[in-house]
Amino acid sequence: MKVRYELIHKDKKTGARYGKVIFTAPDGTEQEYETPMFMPVGTQATVKTLSPEQVKDCGAGIILSNTYHLWLRPTPEIVEKAGGLHEFMNWHGPILTDSGGYQVFSLAHNKKKDITEEGVHFKSELDGKKLFLTPEESIRIQNMLDSDIAMSFDECPPATADKKYLKNSIERTIRWAKRGKAVFNNPNQNLFGIVQGGPYEDLRRWSAEETVKIGFDGYAVGGVANDDECKDDMYKAIEYSCPYLPEDKLRYLMGVGEPVDLLEGVKRGIDIFDCVSPTRLARHGNALVPGVRETGISGLKENRINLKNAKFTDDFSPIDEHCDCYTCKNYTRAYLHHLVKCDEQFGASLLSIHNIRFLIRLTEQMREAIKEDRYEEFVEEFYKK
Amino acid sequence: MKVRYELIHKDKKTGARYGKVIFTAPDGTEQEYETPMFMPVGTQATVKTLSPEQVKDCGAGIILSNTYHLWLRPTPEIVEKAGGLHEFMNWHGPILTDSGGYQVFSLAHNKKKDITEEGVHFKSELDGKKLFLTPEESIRIQNMLDSDIAMSFDECPPATADKKYLKNSIERTIRWAKRGKAVFNNPNQNLFGIVQGGPYEDLRRWSAEETVKIGFDGYAVGGVANDDECKDDMYKAIEYSCPYLPEDKLRYLMGVGEPVDLLEGVKRGIDIFDCVSPTRLARHGNALVPGVRETGISGLKENRINLKNAKFTDDFSPIDEHCDCYTCKNYTRAYLHHLVKCDEQFGASLLSIHNIRFLIRLTEQMREAIKEDRYEEFVEEFYKK
Repeated sequence: MKVRYELIHKDKKTGARYGKVIFTAPDGTEQEYETPMFMPVGTQATVKTLSPEQVKDCGAGIILSNTYHLWLRPTPEIVEKAGGLHEFMNWHGPILTDSGGYQVFSLAHNKKKDITEEGVHFKSELDGKKLFLTPEESIRIQNMLDSDIAMSFDECPPATADKKYLKNSIERTIRWAKRGKAVFNNPNQNLFGIVQGGPYEDLRRWSAEETVKIGFDGYAVGGVANDDECKDDMYKAIEYSCPYLPEDKLRYLMGVGEPVDLLEGVKRGIDIFDCVSPTRLARHGNALVPGVRETGISGLKENRINLKNAKFTDDFSPIDEHCDCYTCKNYTRAYLHHLVKCDEQFGASLLSIHNIRFLIRLTEQMREAIKEDRYEEFVEEFYKK
Repeated sequence: MKVRYELIHKDKKTGARYGKVIFTAPDGTEQEYETPMFMPVGTQATVKTLSPEQVKDCGAGIILSNTYHLWLRPTPEIVEKAGGLHEFMNWHGPILTDSGGYQVFSLAHNKKKDITEEGVHFKSELDGKKLFLTPEESIRIQNMLDSDIAMSFDECPPATADKKYLKNSIERTIRWAKRGKAVFNNPNQNLFGIVQGGPYEDLRRWSAEETVKIGFDGYAVGGVANDDECKDDMYKAIEYSCPYLPEDKLRYLMGVGEPVDLLEGVKRGIDIFDCVSPTRLARHGNALVPGVRETGISGLKENRINLKNAKFTDDFSPIDEHCDCYTCKNYTRAYLHHLVKCDEQFGASLLSIHNIRFLIRLTEQMREAIKEDRYEEFVEEFYKK
């Protein structure tokens, strides 16, 4: 489906954006979603432990799936034969696929990767098989997967990269973005570009301007480390990138899903987010709860409870009495504690529903706050909880 | 909820029963279900990998939960404080709990169990703690769980038990059934008795008549080994028990869920069945498909496919094109193969839905066949598939 973004209102004090993203199918039918938006992740063509209906019931719009994983299994050829990713996984809302770059640069046997101008040589984490991912191959795979939004293949520099390294990396990412765009050939898909440049204002501006010159259907802020120690760098990266991106295109902060980062990202002009954290936290027995907590070097951090804790054995209240999710409406902490202690899959499902809904509900509340020009107050209130 | 059974029609040739089971809540509201019925099992207060809504969508009526497991975790005290098992697990249809006997006799560290007239001493499989389960304790736990149907605590003799052992075992089971009934004190619950006696006509008749004399709200045929080698013994056990059970009470064959056993059980007068097989098979990647297959010594056996098999990689048909389950309506074998290969939980959920629906749909078809006096033909057709 082709995408367009409509900016409806900017918060007077912060500039936080409330908008709509509209997807148009080849037959002209439209799907419309509001932003800011949190996108649940379905790494292997499934949002872990949940049915598409359960994901939809959380209020999800776009979901994300991972090109790297689908490339290895089941392969883009199988997904294409199935009629594309929507048909394959029975998700009829929009899908965004990443480029595979992040996994290649971080997950796949790191020491054995070899970055060349042509692309990245590395070994499969599944069977050690030699693989080669290039900008063209990433786009070929994504075209075959038939997601709605495809991402450019960018170089993901290490968090410790210095300015010189980053400069070379940005230049390569721009060359790769052009190569990817040149072979992109799915008329029902949209291609997004990625801004790099670490926490440096001049590099971010330069990367943003060069990426916008190539021309994409939307833009992502990449290269933000998701570590507690680097939150300031993440916020700088956003602050230094967004002013140079067109107002009429979606802005996507990749791989970020802590409540505090959603709040700070939107404040700086971001529209959409994705992260595996709500489902991963769930599988470890964690539920997100309102507020943020202070931690040592890391400053503000998401607030959560772990249902494994013995104190929940006879706690017959819901995770959060103000939450409107299926889990909070129907199940107690005591029941969740029981499921988690017994390693019952349904515990992970119920916590995934709660955590996804928690982040989506947060974005819904942000939208209301922006519309009423009280975004800054909303953020402050959230921090006080 | 109090239970009553209405026999509506008996198949002219076989005597297979079509009927209704009606549950009446304390406020007078009724829930009505048809029999023959297959009951999915929620061992630890959850039907593994599924939400109650997904279980309901399979057409489930009564579900089963295990007293032994709930006794250890979360404990009946916690379930009672939660408002009973229905509230605790958010299942508002009927629930049957077993007595815990089967697990005590088979699962709990077998060599360390010690059967006395008073009850069974054994060690917890969780932490090795010494435990003592008696007829009174089993009923006390089930009364607290507040299931709708509680089962008498019976001695489960080993499959190899001889007639002399069985005779003593039946006598003890009858004494235990009386002791259990004497302490039973939940006015919204029903208590079922269990017929023992191995494959012996005289023992089955004697056990059935003595159990009926005590007087229960329904009756189970117990002590049937679920091994492929013992199918004839299982069928004999049913044949020799049912004629001595009252026509106006439910008849329950415990722990049996192969399609062939449902077919043969109903033919011999059984109304309800339970088994963990549909969810267990699912977690190992198996889907039930129509027909039965012949095996060596075991004769007829359930028919299934394993989705792990590489031949399903590019099979874009549903598990069974004639199946009306959520899985078959929305997903291909290729997608299920992908999920199973990737160890994705949602694969187990989708296969559980299909397998549960498969057995429930089979009972629905049995009902129609009985109503039209063509049950024998229906069974024969099924075997030919």
